[in-house]
Amino acid sequence: MSSESRSRRYPITQYQNGSDVPSEDSVAVEEPLQITLDGHPIAVVMRTPCDDLDLVRGFLLTEAILPDLDGVMRIDVDQNKNHALVFLKDDVTVDFQRHQRNLYSASSCGICGKATIDSIRQDHPKLGGASTVCSKVLLSLPDRLRDAQRVFNKTGGLHAAGLFSNDGTLLVLREDVGRHNAIDKVLGYAAQQTICLSEVILQVSGRVSFEVMQKAHALGVPIVSAISAPTSLAVEFAQESGQTLIGFLRPPRFNCYAGSERVS
Amino acid sequence: MSSESRSRRYPITQYQNGSDVPSEDSVAVEEPLQITLDGHPIAVVMRTPCDDLDLVRGFLLTEAILPDLDGVMRIDVDQNKNHALVFLKDDVTVDFQRHQRNLYSASSCGICGKATIDSIRQDHPKLGGASTVCSKVLLSLPDRLRDAQRVFNKTGGLHAAGLFSNDGTLLVLREDVGRHNAIDKVLGYAAQQTICLSEVILQVSGRVSFEVMQKAHALGVPIVSAISAPTSLAVEFAQESGQTLIGFLRPPRFNCYAGSERVS
Repeated sequence: MSSESRSRRYPITQYQNGSDVPSEDSVAVEEPLQITLDGHPIAVVMRTPCDDLDLVRGFLLTEAILPDLDGVMRIDVDQNKNHALVFLKDDVTVDFQRHQRNLYSASSCGICGKATIDSIRQDHPKLGGASTVCSKVLLSLPDRLRDAQRVFNKTGGLHAAGLFSNDGTLLVLREDVGRHNAIDKVLGYAAQQTICLSEVILQVSGRVSFEVMQKAHALGVPIVSAISAPTSLAVEFAQESGQTLIGFLRPPRFNCYAGSERVS
Repeated sequence: MSSESRSRRYPITQYQNGSDVPSEDSVAVEEPLQITLDGHPIAVVMRTPCDDLDLVRGFLLTEAILPDLDGVMRIDVDQNKNHALVFLKDDVTVDFQRHQRNLYSASSCGICGKATIDSIRQDHPKLGGASTVCSKVLLSLPDRLRDAQRVFNKTGGLHAAGLFSNDGTLLVLREDVGRHNAIDKVLGYAAQQTICLSEVILQVSGRVSFEVMQKAHALGVPIVSAISAPTSLAVEFAQESGQTLIGFLRPPRFNCYAGSERVS
Protein backbone atom coordinates (compact mmCIF):
# COMPACT_ATOMS: atom_id res chain seq x y z
CA MET A 1 0.00 0.00 0.00
CA SER A 2 1.38 3.38 -0.95
CA SER A 3 2.04 6.00 1.68
CA GLU A 4 -0.25 8.19 -0.49
CA SER A 5 -3.34 6.65 1.08
CA ARG A 6 -2.06 7.20 4.61
CA SER A 7 -1.15 10.86 4.45
CA ARG A 8 -2.02 13.90 2.39
CA ARG A 9 -0.30 17.28 2.20
CA TYR A 10 -2.15 20.53 2.90
CA PRO A 11 -1.04 24.15 2.77
CA ILE A 12 -0.80 25.54 6.30
CA THR A 13 0.32 28.67 8.10
CA GLN A 14 3.09 27.97 10.58
CA TYR A 15 3.34 30.35 13.55
CA GLN A 16 6.57 30.60 15.49
CA ASN A 17 7.95 33.31 17.76
CA GLY A 18 5.59 35.96 16.49
CA SER A 19 6.00 35.34 12.77
CA ASP A 20 3.75 33.41 10.42
CA VAL A 21 5.05 31.52 7.41
CA PRO A 22 3.13 29.70 4.66
CA SER A 23 4.15 26.06 4.68
CA GLU A 24 2.88 22.52 4.05
CA ASP A 25 2.12 19.62 6.37
CA SER A 26 1.42 15.91 5.96
CA VAL A 27 -1.85 14.90 7.60
CA ALA A 28 -3.14 11.39 8.32
CA VAL A 29 -5.93 10.48 5.93
CA GLU A 30 -9.36 9.81 7.46
CA GLU A 31 -12.12 8.53 5.18
CA PRO A 32 -15.33 6.60 5.76
CA LEU A 33 -15.60 2.95 4.77
CA GLN A 34 -19.05 1.54 4.42
CA ILE A 35 -19.18 -2.19 5.15
CA THR A 36 -22.03 -4.14 3.58
CA LEU A 37 -22.66 -7.78 4.44
CA ASP A 38 -24.71 -9.75 1.90
CA GLY A 39 -26.50 -6.55 0.93
CA HIS A 40 -27.06 -5.30 4.51
CA PRO A 41 -25.21 -2.09 5.37
CA ILE A 42 -23.73 -2.93 8.76
CA ALA A 43 -21.34 -0.09 9.58
CA VAL A 44 -19.58 3.04 8.47
CA VAL A 45 -16.07 3.09 9.89
CA MET A 46 -13.91 6.24 9.78
CA ARG A 47 -10.53 4.83 8.86
CA THR A 48 -7.21 5.44 7.15
CA PRO A 49 -7.66 3.85 3.69
CA CYS A 50 -5.02 1.14 3.71
CA ASP A 51 -5.21 -2.54 4.62
CA ASP A 52 -8.98 -2.35 4.21
CA LEU A 53 -9.32 -6.12 3.77
CA ASP A 54 -7.58 -6.68 7.11
CA LEU A 55 -9.84 -4.06 8.69
CA VAL A 56 -13.05 -5.64 7.41
CA ARG A 57 -11.99 -9.15 8.44
CA GLY A 58 -10.95 -7.93 11.88
CA PHE A 59 -14.13 -5.90 12.35
CA LEU A 60 -16.35 -8.88 11.52
CA LEU A 61 -14.50 -11.04 14.06
CA THR A 62 -13.86 -8.62 16.93
CA GLU A 63 -17.46 -7.38 16.80
CA ALA A 64 -18.56 -11.02 16.94
CA ILE A 65 -20.55 -10.68 13.73
CA LEU A 66 -18.86 -13.84 12.42
CA PRO A 67 -17.24 -16.58 14.55
CA ASP A 68 -14.47 -17.12 11.97
CA LEU A 69 -13.59 -16.32 8.36
CA ASP A 70 -14.56 -19.72 6.97
CA GLY A 71 -18.00 -18.46 5.99
CA VAL A 72 -16.67 -15.56 3.90
CA MET A 73 -16.79 -16.24 0.16
CA ARG A 74 -15.37 -12.92 -1.06
CA ILE A 75 -14.69 -9.34 0.04
CA ASP A 76 -14.64 -6.65 -2.64
CA VAL A 77 -13.15 -3.32 -1.58
CA ASP A 78 -13.75 -0.30 -3.81
CA GLN A 79 -11.33 2.28 -2.43
CA ASN A 80 -12.64 5.03 -4.70
CA LYS A 81 -16.16 4.56 -3.44
CA ASN A 82 -15.00 3.74 0.11
CA HIS A 83 -17.17 0.65 0.06
CA ALA A 84 -16.46 -2.92 1.19
CA LEU A 85 -18.85 -5.62 0.02
CA VAL A 86 -18.70 -8.86 1.99
CA PHE A 87 -20.26 -11.95 0.42
CA LEU A 88 -20.93 -15.00 2.58
CA LYS A 89 -21.05 -18.60 1.42
CA ASP A 90 -24.54 -19.90 0.67
CA ASP A 91 -24.86 -22.00 3.80
CA VAL A 92 -23.80 -19.19 6.18
CA THR A 93 -26.41 -17.09 7.93
CA VAL A 94 -26.00 -14.06 10.15
CA ASP A 95 -28.60 -13.05 12.70
CA PHE A 96 -28.92 -9.42 11.69
CA GLN A 97 -31.62 -8.83 14.27
CA ARG A 98 -29.29 -9.83 17.07
CA HIS A 99 -26.70 -7.32 15.95
CA GLN A 100 -29.06 -4.55 15.11
CA ARG A 101 -28.63 -1.51 17.25
CA ASN A 102 -31.37 1.03 16.85
CA LEU A 103 -29.25 3.75 18.23
CA TYR A 104 -27.42 6.89 17.53
CA SER A 105 -23.80 6.83 18.30
CA ALA A 106 -21.42 7.08 21.15
CA SER A 107 -18.07 7.86 22.55
CA SER A 108 -14.55 7.31 21.36
CA CYS A 109 -14.44 3.90 22.96
CA GLY A 110 -16.15 2.31 20.04
CA ILE A 111 -18.98 0.79 22.07
CA CYS A 112 -21.63 2.48 20.04
CA GLY A 113 -25.27 2.03 19.70
CA LYS A 114 -25.73 -1.01 21.83
CA ALA A 115 -29.28 -1.02 23.03
CA THR A 116 -28.73 -1.69 26.69
CA ILE A 117 -25.97 -1.68 29.24
CA ASP A 118 -26.51 -5.38 29.72
CA SER A 119 -25.53 -6.04 26.13
CA ILE A 120 -22.14 -4.41 26.55
CA ARG A 121 -20.45 -7.22 28.35
CA GLN A 122 -20.48 -9.94 25.76
CA ASP A 123 -19.84 -13.45 26.96
CA HIS A 124 -16.22 -13.65 27.86
CA PRO A 125 -15.03 -17.06 28.98
CA LYS A 126 -11.79 -16.93 30.92
CA LEU A 127 -8.70 -17.26 28.77
CA GLY A 128 -6.35 -20.02 29.87
CA GLY A 129 -3.11 -21.11 28.30
CA ALA A 130 0.46 -21.23 29.47
CA SER A 131 1.64 -18.33 27.33
CA THR A 132 4.23 -16.23 29.14
CA VAL A 133 6.45 -13.30 28.25
CA CYS A 134 9.75 -12.15 29.71
CA SER A 135 9.76 -8.61 31.15
CA LYS A 136 12.85 -7.83 29.03
CA VAL A 137 10.91 -8.64 25.87
CA LEU A 138 8.02 -6.44 26.99
CA LEU A 139 10.40 -3.54 27.61
CA SER A 140 11.70 -3.83 24.03
CA LEU A 141 8.27 -3.57 22.39
CA PRO A 142 7.75 0.23 22.33
CA ASP A 143 11.01 0.75 20.42
CA ARG A 144 10.26 -2.09 18.04
CA LEU A 145 6.79 -0.71 17.34
CA ARG A 146 8.12 2.82 16.83
CA ASP A 147 10.95 1.65 14.57
CA ALA A 148 8.53 -0.22 12.35
CA GLN A 149 6.08 2.68 12.40
CA ARG A 150 8.65 5.32 11.57
CA VAL A 151 8.79 4.09 7.99
CA PHE A 152 5.20 5.08 7.34
CA ASN A 153 4.06 7.63 9.81
CA LYS A 154 5.22 11.15 9.19
CA THR A 155 1.99 12.73 10.32
CA GLY A 156 1.94 12.19 14.07
CA GLY A 157 -1.71 11.36 13.63
CA LEU A 158 -1.76 7.59 13.31
CA HIS A 159 -2.32 5.05 16.02
CA ALA A 160 -0.32 1.84 15.75
CA ALA A 161 -1.05 -1.71 16.81
CA GLY A 162 1.36 -4.60 16.52
CA LEU A 163 1.29 -8.30 17.20
CA PHE A 164 4.50 -9.75 18.63
CA SER A 165 5.50 -13.30 19.36
CA ASN A 166 6.62 -14.14 22.90
CA ASP A 167 10.27 -13.68 21.92
CA GLY A 168 9.57 -10.12 20.68
CA THR A 169 9.42 -10.81 16.94
CA LEU A 170 7.07 -8.42 15.15
CA LEU A 171 4.44 -10.45 13.31
CA VAL A 172 2.37 -7.58 11.90
CA LEU A 173 2.03 -3.81 12.33
CA ARG A 174 -0.94 -1.73 11.22
CA GLU A 175 -1.76 1.95 11.51
CA ASP A 176 -4.94 3.98 11.46
CA VAL A 177 -6.42 7.30 12.61
CA GLY A 178 -8.70 5.17 14.80
CA ARG A 179 -7.01 3.02 17.39
CA HIS A 180 -9.75 0.40 17.27
CA ASN A 181 -9.25 0.18 13.52
CA ALA A 182 -5.51 -0.41 13.94
CA ILE A 183 -6.37 -3.30 16.28
CA ASP A 184 -9.00 -4.71 13.90
CA LYS A 185 -6.43 -4.54 11.09
CA VAL A 186 -3.75 -6.57 12.91
CA LEU A 187 -6.27 -9.10 14.19
CA GLY A 188 -7.94 -9.41 10.78
CA TYR A 189 -4.54 -10.00 9.17
CA ALA A 190 -3.58 -12.56 11.81
CA ALA A 191 -6.87 -14.45 11.47
CA GLN A 192 -6.44 -14.65 7.69
CA GLN A 193 -2.83 -15.87 8.06
CA THR A 194 -3.94 -18.35 10.73
CA ILE A 195 -1.38 -17.00 13.20
CA CYS A 196 -1.88 -18.72 16.57
CA LEU A 197 -3.34 -15.86 18.59
CA SER A 198 -3.19 -17.63 21.94
CA GLU A 199 0.57 -17.04 22.00
CA VAL A 200 0.93 -13.43 20.91
CA ILE A 201 1.19 -10.03 22.56
CA LEU A 202 -0.95 -7.17 21.27
CA GLN A 203 1.03 -3.93 21.64
CA VAL A 204 -0.80 -0.63 21.16
CA SER A 205 0.51 2.91 20.90
CA GLY A 206 -2.08 4.63 23.07
CA ARG A 207 -4.47 3.92 25.90
CA VAL A 208 -6.48 0.80 26.68
CA SER A 209 -10.23 1.02 27.03
CA PHE A 210 -12.69 -1.74 27.78
CA GLU A 211 -13.26 -2.33 24.10
CA VAL A 212 -9.58 -2.88 23.31
CA MET A 213 -9.53 -5.73 25.83
CA GLN A 214 -12.79 -7.07 24.45
CA LYS A 215 -11.53 -7.05 20.86
CA ALA A 216 -8.34 -8.87 21.90
CA HIS A 217 -10.38 -11.34 23.91
CA ALA A 218 -12.73 -12.06 20.99
CA LEU A 219 -9.75 -13.59 19.17
CA GLY A 220 -8.18 -15.20 22.21
CA VAL A 221 -5.21 -12.82 22.62
CA PRO A 222 -3.99 -13.30 26.21
CA ILE A 223 -1.57 -10.37 26.64
CA VAL A 224 -2.31 -6.70 25.84
CA SER A 225 0.36 -4.08 26.39
CA ALA A 226 0.12 -0.31 26.04
CA ILE A 227 2.35 2.74 26.21
CA SER A 228 -0.32 4.65 28.09
CA ALA A 229 -3.00 4.28 30.73
CA PRO A 230 -5.78 1.70 30.97
CA THR A 231 -9.32 2.51 32.09
CA SER A 232 -11.05 0.99 35.11
CA LEU A 233 -13.28 -1.17 32.94
CA ALA A 234 -10.26 -2.43 30.95
CA VAL A 235 -8.63 -3.53 34.22
CA GLU A 236 -11.79 -5.20 35.48
CA PHE A 237 -12.46 -6.90 32.14
CA ALA A 238 -8.90 -8.24 32.09
CA GLN A 239 -9.28 -9.59 35.62
CA GLU A 240 -12.57 -11.31 34.77
CA SER A 241 -11.47 -12.66 31.41
CA GLY A 242 -8.08 -13.95 32.53
CA GLN A 243 -6.11 -11.58 30.29
CA THR A 244 -2.79 -9.96 31.13
CA LEU A 245 -2.89 -6.16 30.95
CA ILE A 246 0.33 -4.11 30.83
CA GLY A 247 0.14 -0.31 30.97
CA PHE A 248 2.53 2.65 31.05
CA LEU A 249 5.13 0.52 29.26
CA ARG A 250 7.90 3.10 29.36
CA PRO A 251 11.33 1.53 29.72
CA PRO A 252 12.84 0.82 32.18
CA ARG A 253 9.44 0.33 33.82
CA PHE A 254 5.90 -0.85 33.31
CA ASN A 255 2.79 -1.65 35.35
CA CYS A 256 0.91 -4.94 35.27
CA TYR A 257 -2.77 -4.41 36.07
CA ALA A 258 -3.95 -8.00 35.68
CA GLY A 259 -2.62 -11.46 34.94
CA SER A 260 0.93 -10.95 36.24
CA GLU A 261 1.44 -14.73 36.28
CA ARG A 262 2.18 -14.48 32.53
CA VAL A 263 5.14 -12.11 33.10
CA SER A 264 8.43 -13.84 33.88
CA MET B 1 -18.17 16.05 41.84
CA SER B 2 -15.74 14.00 43.91
CA SER B 3 -12.51 12.76 42.42
CA GLU B 4 -13.78 9.33 43.50
CA SER B 5 -15.93 9.06 40.40
CA ARG B 6 -13.04 9.97 38.10
CA SER B 7 -10.40 7.55 39.30
CA ARG B 8 -10.22 4.27 41.15
CA ARG B 9 -7.25 2.54 42.76
CA TYR B 10 -6.21 -0.98 41.80
CA PRO B 11 -3.46 -3.26 43.09
CA ILE B 12 -0.75 -3.61 40.44
CA THR B 13 2.67 -5.13 40.01
CA GLN B 14 5.29 -2.56 39.14
CA TYR B 15 8.30 -3.79 37.15
CA GLN B 16 11.50 -1.79 37.13
CA ASN B 17 15.08 -2.77 36.35
CA GLY B 18 14.46 -6.47 36.72
CA SER B 19 12.53 -6.36 39.99
CA ASP B 20 8.77 -6.52 40.56
CA VAL B 21 7.05 -4.79 43.43
CA PRO B 22 3.39 -4.93 44.51
CA SER B 23 1.95 -1.43 44.35
CA GLU B 24 -1.23 0.54 43.64
CA ASP B 25 -2.27 2.79 40.80
CA SER B 26 -5.06 5.28 40.14
CA VAL B 27 -6.97 4.48 36.98
CA ALA B 28 -9.49 6.65 35.12
CA VAL B 29 -13.00 5.35 35.63
CA GLU B 30 -14.86 4.15 32.51
CA GLU B 31 -18.52 3.19 32.88
CA PRO B 32 -21.44 2.96 30.49
CA LEU B 33 -24.21 5.55 30.57
CA GLN B 34 -27.46 4.60 28.91
CA ILE B 35 -29.34 7.62 27.58
CA THR B 36 -33.08 7.25 27.17
CA LEU B 37 -35.17 9.94 25.49
CA ASP B 38 -38.89 9.87 26.33
CA GLY B 39 -38.66 6.11 26.81
CA HIS B 40 -36.56 5.42 23.70
CA PRO B 41 -33.06 4.10 24.45
CA ILE B 42 -30.91 6.19 22.13
CA ALA B 43 -27.31 5.47 23.11
CA VAL B 44 -24.91 3.81 25.47
CA VAL B 45 -21.91 6.05 25.99
CA MET B 46 -18.74 4.77 27.68
CA ARG B 47 -17.81 7.70 29.88
CA THR B 48 -16.16 8.84 33.10
CA PRO B 49 -19.06 9.24 35.53
CA CYS B 50 -18.92 12.93 36.36
CA ASP B 51 -20.72 15.91 34.84
CA ASP B 52 -23.27 13.51 33.38
CA LEU B 53 -25.88 16.23 32.94
CA ASP B 54 -23.45 18.25 30.83
CA LEU B 55 -22.61 15.14 28.84
CA VAL B 56 -26.23 14.31 28.08
CA ARG B 57 -27.07 17.89 27.11
CA GLY B 58 -24.00 18.12 24.89
CA PHE B 59 -24.65 14.75 23.28
CA LEU B 60 -28.23 15.68 22.38
CA LEU B 61 -27.02 18.91 20.75
CA THR B 62 -23.79 17.84 19.02
CA GLU B 63 -25.46 14.75 17.59
CA ALA B 64 -28.23 17.04 16.29
CA ILE B 65 -30.90 15.06 18.11
CA LEU B 66 -32.28 18.33 19.51
CA PRO B 67 -31.78 21.81 18.02
CA ASP B 68 -31.56 23.41 21.49
CA LEU B 69 -32.30 22.65 25.14
CA ASP B 70 -35.59 24.56 25.25
CA GLY B 71 -37.56 21.39 24.61
CA VAL B 72 -36.05 19.50 27.55
CA MET B 73 -38.37 19.32 30.55
CA ARG B 74 -36.12 17.29 32.87
CA ILE B 75 -33.08 15.03 32.91
CA ASP B 76 -32.80 12.44 35.69
CA VAL B 77 -29.39 10.85 36.09
CA ASP B 78 -29.11 7.72 38.23
CA GLN B 79 -25.37 7.30 38.69
CA ASN B 80 -25.74 3.97 40.46
CA LYS B 81 -27.69 2.51 37.58
CA ASN B 82 -25.66 4.45 34.97
CA HIS B 83 -28.88 5.63 33.40
CA ALA B 84 -29.94 9.09 32.17
CA LEU B 85 -33.63 9.64 31.51
CA VAL B 86 -34.44 12.66 29.35
CA PHE B 87 -38.01 13.94 29.38
CA LEU B 88 -39.15 16.35 26.68
CA LYS B 89 -41.87 18.95 26.98
CA ASP B 90 -45.26 17.83 25.69
CA ASP B 91 -45.14 19.85 22.48
CA VAL B 92 -41.66 18.64 21.45
CA THR B 93 -41.27 15.75 19.05
CA VAL B 94 -38.14 13.97 17.88
CA ASP B 95 -37.98 12.09 14.60
CA PHE B 96 -36.59 8.85 15.95
CA GLN B 97 -36.71 7.24 12.52
CA ARG B 98 -34.39 9.85 11.10
CA HIS B 99 -31.81 9.19 13.78
CA GLN B 100 -32.16 5.46 13.81
CA ARG B 101 -29.03 3.67 12.76
CA ASN B 102 -29.54 0.00 12.21
CA LEU B 103 -25.90 -0.69 12.53
CA TYR B 104 -23.25 -2.26 14.59
CA SER B 105 -20.55 0.02 15.70
CA ALA B 106 -17.45 1.68 14.47
CA SER B 107 -14.15 3.30 15.03
CA SER B 108 -12.79 5.60 17.66
CA CYS B 109 -13.92 8.63 15.73
CA GLY B 110 -17.39 8.37 17.11
CA ILE B 111 -19.12 8.28 13.73
CA CYS B 112 -20.88 5.09 14.47
CA GLY B 113 -23.71 3.29 12.97
CA LYS B 114 -24.70 5.82 10.37
CA ALA B 115 -26.41 3.95 7.60
CA THR B 116 -24.63 5.45 4.63
CA ILE B 117 -21.58 7.47 3.81
CA ASP B 118 -23.83 10.20 2.51
CA SER B 119 -25.33 10.65 5.94
CA ILE B 120 -21.97 11.40 7.53
CA ARG B 121 -21.63 14.89 6.30
CA GLN B 122 -24.50 16.59 8.01
CA ASP B 123 -25.53 19.96 6.71
CA HIS B 124 -22.85 22.38 7.70
CA PRO B 125 -23.52 25.98 6.75
CA LYS B 126 -20.38 28.09 6.70
CA LEU B 127 -19.62 29.80 9.99
CA GLY B 128 -19.13 33.52 9.73
CA GLY B 129 -18.45 36.00 12.48
CA ALA B 130 -15.63 38.36 13.22
CA SER B 131 -14.24 36.35 16.14
CA THR B 132 -10.44 36.50 16.22
CA VAL B 133 -7.74 35.31 18.57
CA CYS B 134 -4.22 36.56 19.16
CA SER B 135 -1.46 33.99 18.56
CA LYS B 136 -0.05 34.79 22.02
CA VAL B 137 -3.34 33.77 23.62
CA LEU B 138 -3.39 30.54 21.62
CA LEU B 139 0.15 29.71 22.76
CA SER B 140 -0.94 30.08 26.40
CA LEU B 141 -3.82 27.60 26.15
CA PRO B 142 -1.99 24.27 26.61
CA ASP B 143 -0.50 25.41 29.93
CA ARG B 144 -3.81 26.83 31.10
CA LEU B 145 -5.61 23.59 30.23
CA ARG B 146 -2.95 21.48 31.91
CA ASP B 147 -2.89 23.65 35.04
CA ALA B 148 -6.64 23.35 35.41
CA GLN B 149 -6.52 19.64 34.67
CA ARG B 150 -3.73 18.87 37.10
CA VAL B 151 -6.10 19.32 40.01
CA PHE B 152 -8.20 16.37 38.98
CA ASN B 153 -6.25 14.09 36.77
CA LYS B 154 -3.77 11.84 38.48
CA THR B 155 -4.38 8.91 36.18
CA GLY B 156 -2.88 9.97 32.86
CA GLY B 157 -5.95 8.43 31.30
CA LEU B 158 -8.33 11.34 30.91
CA HIS B 159 -8.84 13.51 27.85
CA ALA B 160 -9.53 17.18 28.53
CA ALA B 161 -11.53 19.76 26.64
CA GLY B 162 -11.79 23.41 27.58
CA LEU B 163 -13.64 26.44 26.33
CA PHE B 164 -11.70 29.68 26.43
CA SER B 165 -12.75 33.24 25.70
CA ASN B 166 -10.77 35.15 23.09
CA ASP B 167 -8.61 36.73 25.79
CA GLY B 168 -7.61 33.28 27.11
CA THR B 169 -9.96 33.09 30.12
CA LEU B 170 -10.97 29.52 30.90
CA LEU B 171 -14.77 29.28 30.81
CA VAL B 172 -15.14 25.57 31.49
CA LEU B 173 -12.97 22.45 31.62
CA ARG B 174 -14.24 18.90 31.46
CA GLU B 175 -12.48 15.52 31.44
CA ASP B 176 -13.40 12.06 30.27
CA VAL B 177 -11.87 8.76 29.15
CA GLY B 178 -13.49 9.49 25.78
CA ARG B 179 -12.38 12.64 24.04
CA HIS B 180 -15.74 13.11 22.34
CA ASN B 181 -17.38 12.93 25.74
CA ALA B 182 -15.10 15.64 27.12
CA ILE B 183 -16.18 17.85 24.21
CA ASP B 184 -19.87 17.03 24.69
CA LYS B 185 -19.49 17.91 28.38
CA VAL B 186 -18.03 21.38 27.80
CA LEU B 187 -20.50 22.17 25.02
CA GLY B 188 -23.44 20.85 27.06
CA TYR B 189 -22.37 23.01 30.00
CA ALA B 190 -21.94 26.07 27.78
CA ALA B 191 -25.32 25.61 26.13
CA GLN B 192 -27.04 25.37 29.52
CA GLN B 193 -25.21 28.50 30.78
CA THR B 194 -26.05 30.29 27.53
CA ILE B 195 -22.40 31.12 26.92
CA CYS B 196 -22.05 32.77 23.50
CA LEU B 197 -20.35 30.01 21.55
CA SER B 198 -19.63 32.08 18.44
CA GLU B 199 -16.83 33.78 20.37
CA VAL B 200 -15.03 30.93 22.09
CA ILE B 201 -12.09 28.66 21.41
CA LEU B 202 -12.44 24.92 21.95
CA GLN B 203 -9.10 23.57 23.18
CA VAL B 204 -8.62 19.79 23.25
CA SER B 205 -5.83 17.69 24.72
CA GLY B 206 -5.45 15.21 21.90
CA ARG B 207 -6.02 14.86 18.19
CA VAL B 208 -8.74 16.32 15.99
CA SER B 209 -10.87 14.05 13.87
CA PHE B 210 -13.70 14.94 11.53
CA GLU B 211 -16.22 14.45 14.29
CA VAL B 212 -14.54 16.86 16.68
CA MET B 213 -14.93 19.60 14.07
CA GLN B 214 -18.51 18.55 13.41
CA LYS B 215 -19.43 18.63 17.11
CA ALA B 216 -17.91 22.10 17.48
CA HIS B 217 -19.69 23.24 14.34
CA ALA B 218 -23.05 21.95 15.54
CA LEU B 219 -22.92 24.57 18.29
CA GLY B 220 -21.33 27.28 16.18
CA VAL B 221 -17.82 27.18 17.71
CA PRO B 222 -15.54 28.91 15.17
CA ILE B 223 -12.06 28.04 16.51
CA VAL B 224 -10.80 24.57 17.46
CA SER B 225 -7.28 24.13 18.76
CA ALA B 226 -5.43 20.91 19.60
CA ILE B 227 -2.12 19.81 21.09
CA SER B 228 -1.83 17.06 18.49
CA ALA B 229 -2.48 16.27 14.85
CA PRO B 230 -5.65 16.76 12.83
CA THR B 231 -6.93 14.24 10.27
CA SER B 232 -7.44 14.99 6.58
CA LEU B 233 -11.22 15.04 6.97
CA ALA B 234 -10.96 17.44 9.91
CA VAL B 235 -8.92 19.83 7.75
CA GLU B 236 -11.34 19.54 4.83
CA PHE B 237 -14.39 19.93 7.04
CA ALA B 238 -12.89 23.06 8.63
CA GLN B 239 -12.17 24.52 5.19
CA GLU B 240 -15.72 23.83 3.99
CA SER B 241 -17.45 24.96 7.17
CA GLY B 242 -15.46 28.14 7.65
CA GLN B 243 -13.90 27.02 10.95
CA THR B 244 -10.39 27.80 12.15
CA LEU B 245 -8.35 24.68 12.90
CA ILE B 246 -5.13 24.90 14.95
CA GLY B 247 -2.97 21.78 15.38
CA PHE B 248 0.32 20.82 17.02
CA LEU B 249 -0.10 23.72 19.45
CA ARG B 250 3.24 23.29 21.19
CA PRO B 251 4.72 26.59 22.30
CA PRO B 252 6.51 28.44 20.83
CA ARG B 253 4.83 27.16 17.67
CA PHE B 254 1.59 25.95 16.14
CA ASN B 255 0.12 25.15 12.74
CA CYS B 256 -3.03 26.66 11.30
CA TYR B 257 -4.74 24.24 8.91
CA ALA B 258 -7.77 26.34 8.04
CA GLY B 259 -9.27 29.76 8.72
CA SER B 260 -6.03 31.63 9.46
CA GLU B 261 -7.88 34.95 9.03
CA ARG B 262 -9.10 34.52 12.62
CA VAL B 263 -5.52 34.45 14.00
CA SER B 264 -4.01 37.86 14.65
